[in-house]
Amino acid sequence: MNKDRPIGVFDSGIGGLSVLKQFVRFMPYEKYIYLGDNAHVPYGNKSAETVKEYAKECTEFLLDKKVKMIVVACNTVSAVAMDVVRSVSDVPVIEMIKPAAGAALRATVNGKIAVIGTRATINSKAYSNEILKLSDSKKIKVLSEACPLFVPIIEEGWIRHDATRLIIEEYLNDLYKTGVDTLVLGCTHYPMLAKLLTEIYPGLTLIDSGEHAAVSAVRVLAESSVLKEERNEYVVKPEIEFFVSDLPANFNEQAQRFLGFEVNSPKRVVPGRSLPK
Amino acid sequence: MNKDRPIGVFDSGIGGLSVLKQFVRFMPYEKYIYLGDNAHVPYGNKSAETVKEYAKECTEFLLDKKVKMIVVACNTVSAVAMDVVRSVSDVPVIEMIKPAAGAALRATVNGKIAVIGTRATINSKAYSNEILKLSDSKKIKVLSEACPLFVPIIEEGWIRHDATRLIIEEYLNDLYKTGVDTLVLGCTHYPMLAKLLTEIYPGLTLIDSGEHAAVSAVRVLAESSVLKEERNEYVVKPEIEFFVSDLPANFNEQAQRFLGFEVNSPKRVVPGRSLPK
Repeated sequence: MNKDRPIGVFDSGIGGLSVLKQFVRFMPYEKYIYLGDNAHVPYGNKSAETVKEYAKECTEFLLDKKVKMIVVACNTVSAVAMDVVRSVSDVPVIEMIKPAAGAALRATVNGKIAVIGTRATINSKAYSNEILKLSDSKKIKVLSEACPLFVPIIEEGWIRHDATRLIIEEYLNDLYKTGVDTLVLGCTHYPMLAKLLTEIYPGLTLIDSGEHAAVSAVRVLAESSVLKEERNEYVVKPEIEFFVSDLPANFNEQAQRFLGFEVNSPKRVVPGRSLPK
Repeated sequence: MNKDRPIGVFDSGIGGLSVLKQFVRFMPYEKYIYLGDNAHVPYGNKSAETVKEYAKECTEFLLDKKVKMIVVACNTVSAVAMDVVRSVSDVPVIEMIKPAAGAALRATVNGKIAVIGTRATINSKAYSNEILKLSDSKKIKVLSEACPLFVPIIEEGWIRHDATRLIIEEYLNDLYKTGVDTLVLGCTHYPMLAKLLTEIYPGLTLIDSGEHAAVSAVRVLAESSVLKEERNEYVVKPEIEFFVSDLPANFNEQAQRFLGFEVNSPKRVVPGRSLPK
């Protein structure tokens, strides 16, 4: 396979940009295609059947763009639709849950891990089941907490607001008091709160799914000899093509906040219908 | 080469343990040999000739242990003695400066990068020269500041003390006011202060050499097909053999503080003399 092919990343919206940011951090010399299926956002409150259908369309859209890897930068798809994504993809697939679950197990010292996410992700028990499955030890304890206000407050851009601090403390103080030492950010939006979380709870090790997914991707691409040559130039704007299924007014502003650099305007596409099939 | 061979890591003392921590974070399933040449610590105030001799002995000690990779977890050796390390090593070598310099260039948005380190590292200009060499842009500005009190205060274990906060502010407030957006932790001890630095300067992106060296290592090992199979079990104590050239009373306590988990007691060795050659 050609090393110059892009890496394809998709999510139901903009949360997956925190994952893309980690990929760019470790592999800035790669080309990326990002698809935000925001005409269907959020996936979390839809049936597994519908999510599988959307995930299949997104995967096929990216394969049509000749990507060399599919990154499922979406916790809902990672939890309920990986069978469909893997069945249609002929390139390696990276998802969110397993890398983060493994990282949490490696990070915890006292065996007490907390997982936070949207209500849908927490109710699915995808992270806690994966952590307990990977763990060969009876000593692991996993606690979970849904933090439904985090996504809207992050999308509002209130990353360091006093209200945000109060919301964090309301959701997490009791959890913190149980003595957990590791906190899995089980929603792709949440890395935006990492600095504030570290400030409030300096004793916690935060697990950013995107970071561990990116390192898994380095490994998988390198083992298949399709990782591009390393380049270290000062790249203000990595090579990323953005596609969305709906065009929200503030996409660029939101994207810049997630990625930390200016982005090109996205192209609007309809994944299911834009394909020749 | 056999995948089961360990990865060899050396430093003049315990600072390299912050590098080892990053390797363990991303590759917990690997075996490690750590050599702290603390009979000769610190390397920073010794002549390049002497440092080269020590580095050669450390490298040969690790090669004798059949390592599959040498990690030079020491800024001084990375700055002045890589020619010697590479000339005696028949396995891949990872050093500290280039991965961090590249990461800083990728991380900065406004092109203003600060480097902090020991007086010796800052005087050597190793980081700023490498950053400017890698950069193809005239827009990059690199500022530096030696922070000589950081190492002793970290070794005293005062990671969150009010004195530490005052010392940080004394060294870095003026630097911060120049508008730098990226801070290279150019000393392997400094990641111990990362949380406090982020708290004081939330706008800064910190560059931890060990993290980027570890991801480079994943790449290099994967491309040579000598990365071990991924395992995600709950590993409280990764498989690490510790060697030191002097036995300080508090090695285990210090090591645990750097690594975040308990360690086996180190064996005392004399690198130059323990070899059959």
